[in-house]
Amino acid sequence: MLKVEHIGIAVKSLSASVPLFEKLLNTACYKTEEIASEGVSTAFFRQGDTKIELLEAAEESSPIAKFLAKRGEGVHHIAFEVTDIKAEMARLQAEGFELLNSEPKPGADNKLVCFLHPKGTSGILVELTQEKL
Amino acid sequence: MLKVEHIGIAVKSLSASVPLFEKLLNTACYKTEEIASEGVSTAFFRQGDTKIELLEAAEESSPIAKFLAKRGEGVHHIAFEVTDIKAEMARLQAEGFELLNSEPKPGADNKLVCFLHPKGTSGILVELTQEKL
Repeated sequence: MLKVEHIGIAVKSLSASVPLFEKLLNTACYKTEEIASEGVSTAFFRQGDTKIELLEAAEESSPIAKFLAKRGEGVHHIAFEVTDIKAEMARLQAEGFELLNSEPKPGADNKLVCFLHPKGTSGILVELTQEKL
Repeated sequence: MLKVEHIGIAVKSLSASVPLFEKLLNTACYKTEEIASEGVSTAFFRQGDTKIELLEAAEESSPIAKFLAKRGEGVHHIAFEVTDIKAEMARLQAEGFELLNSEPKPGADNKLVCFLHPKGTSGILVELTQEKL
């Protein structure tokens, strides 16, 4: 794990939370992106060497819609940057962590990603993320 | 806001979660600290330019004990480093955010801190943190 690449925050509405986070962080949202495969709309803010990613459900079947219904708005996941996602997935699986996808899959921001089950990580949904080559 | 200084994670037991996060992050816990005023025990991990802070309730009246009873283990707060905490508190209050303490107070890791009410920040307990001079 190289660093915290971003913190993902589930919000009800990007149109409400983007201006709120622009005030809070005192910096402009620099990118929005739809991730059709996950049914989410995202908005990004830089914060030092890491990012804040706001996530809005784009459809009812989205994991973000389920998260919001169960927990309300709040931190959804923490993403850690890795240099070799397959090697890191193998290392973590050997350590006993449960991977939620057996192969890296495309994520936002031109990344390959893999999630770990939060039941094995003190309740944290952990994302591994590697820049696509 | 300069950067994400740390991410605070509420855990039931440091003795269980410290070795777990050492495996997960592939790095050793570099510091533990008791914060008597908050009734919490903490353990820190470096992760790039930011830190992961695990928080265990040291007493039943601790805010961490209340958080765990209500939400279970998970992300408790996000701390943002600022250069002038009083100026940042004034800026955020003027923007309509609710401060949970009207004056900076001592936190872990030789810091002055101030928290913002999560109802005004899409459910995120935000900590402002400045190194004590």
